[in-house]
Amino acid sequence: MYPAMELRLPTWISDLVETRGTVFPTLASRMAFVIELARKNIDHGGGPFGAAVFESESGKLVAPGVNLVLPLQSSLAHAEAVAIALAQRVCETYDLSSPGLPPMELVTSAQPCIQCYGILWWSGLQRLVIGARKEDVEQITGFMEGPLPSDWIQHLAVRPPLPPVTVIRDVLREEACAVLQQYRQMDRPIYHPSSA
Amino acid sequence: MYPAMELRLPTWISDLVETRGTVFPTLASRMAFVIELARKNIDHGGGPFGAAVFESESGKLVAPGVNLVLPLQSSLAHAEAVAIALAQRVCETYDLSSPGLPPMELVTSAQPCIQCYGILWWSGLQRLVIGARKEDVEQITGFMEGPLPSDWIQHLAVRPPLPPVTVIRDVLREEACAVLQQYRQMDRPIYHPSSA
Repeated sequence: MYPAMELRLPTWISDLVETRGTVFPTLASRMAFVIELARKNIDHGGGPFGAAVFESESGKLVAPGVNLVLPLQSSLAHAEAVAIALAQRVCETYDLSSPGLPPMELVTSAQPCIQCYGILWWSGLQRLVIGARKEDVEQITGFMEGPLPSDWIQHLAVRPPLPPVTVIRDVLREEACAVLQQYRQMDRPIYHPSSA
Repeated sequence: MYPAMELRLPTWISDLVETRGTVFPTLASRMAFVIELARKNIDHGGGPFGAAVFESESGKLVAPGVNLVLPLQSSLAHAEAVAIALAQRVCETYDLSSPGLPPMELVTSAQPCIQCYGILWWSGLQRLVIGARKEDVEQITGFMEGPLPSDWIQHLAVRPPLPPVTVIRDVLREEACAVLQQYRQMDRPIYHPSSA
């Protein structure tokens, strides 16, 4: 009776993963990968944001994500949301900190907005690695980030009984900002409610 | 290469909608419907939360949602997230405040957590109608709500250039709390990360 909502990656991402491999040993290599996702996503009609879930120790790619708000016509389909949703499918659990799983992290080309901060909160991921900061996103592109609590990092760091989430910022920040600048220069849409 | 994530309603919901109809003229009738969703969802292995998107003026049901975290093994699958995701599929847009659409609202049996607050933020919905409060959820069930900004209602009320979202609380609050109490008494799981 009601249609289903499906988050599915475009096929170009599988091709890219085949080229780049599935192990990214350093944080810089993981960030470079999600920035490449963001850049290529613009060419495919998506927003300038890329993200992925990795196993923190091995650097194994669990699931990539890109912003698919326009292609899927869904405001949920931010890059971080897609990566987390698909990582939970790959691992077949709602809890990426389940016993038996290695610690995992979200690497994202730009600081999560209020939605993706909340999705991260319940995901079981234990580290958040960020390229561009909130002020970069808002000043360069005009995209808003929403009302994050001012102490959003501290809230993640100490939240018993939930496992803490460590935040690392400014990884390849300039390269991450360059993609945002590219999007702006192309005069592409800011897909907020009522501002289409 | 990567599996897709699908938010799909269980078939019992279509049966219920067939019985209850698709027009709910008053806020109380809308809330009674989502509370019924929450109660029936417990019997089907889901969490004690129900929500739906309605056209605010006519009361027409656009899309229902229930908590499917355990059935779908997805931490995204909160009732509000499901209702909003499916409403955007029904209306074929990422923006439920698009020109040509009537104003729509989210009616939820319990106050949205940090994740669903963020999802609401970008949805284009223009009213939020709540049964049980955050403190009801946390004290009765043990489910956490996450770090909402302390002035979360005010943030929704004034947020240019985005359309404002009006919040109405305490609609059938006691009835909404009764479902939470039922869940607790059944000793059902609190599906947080690392607390399975």
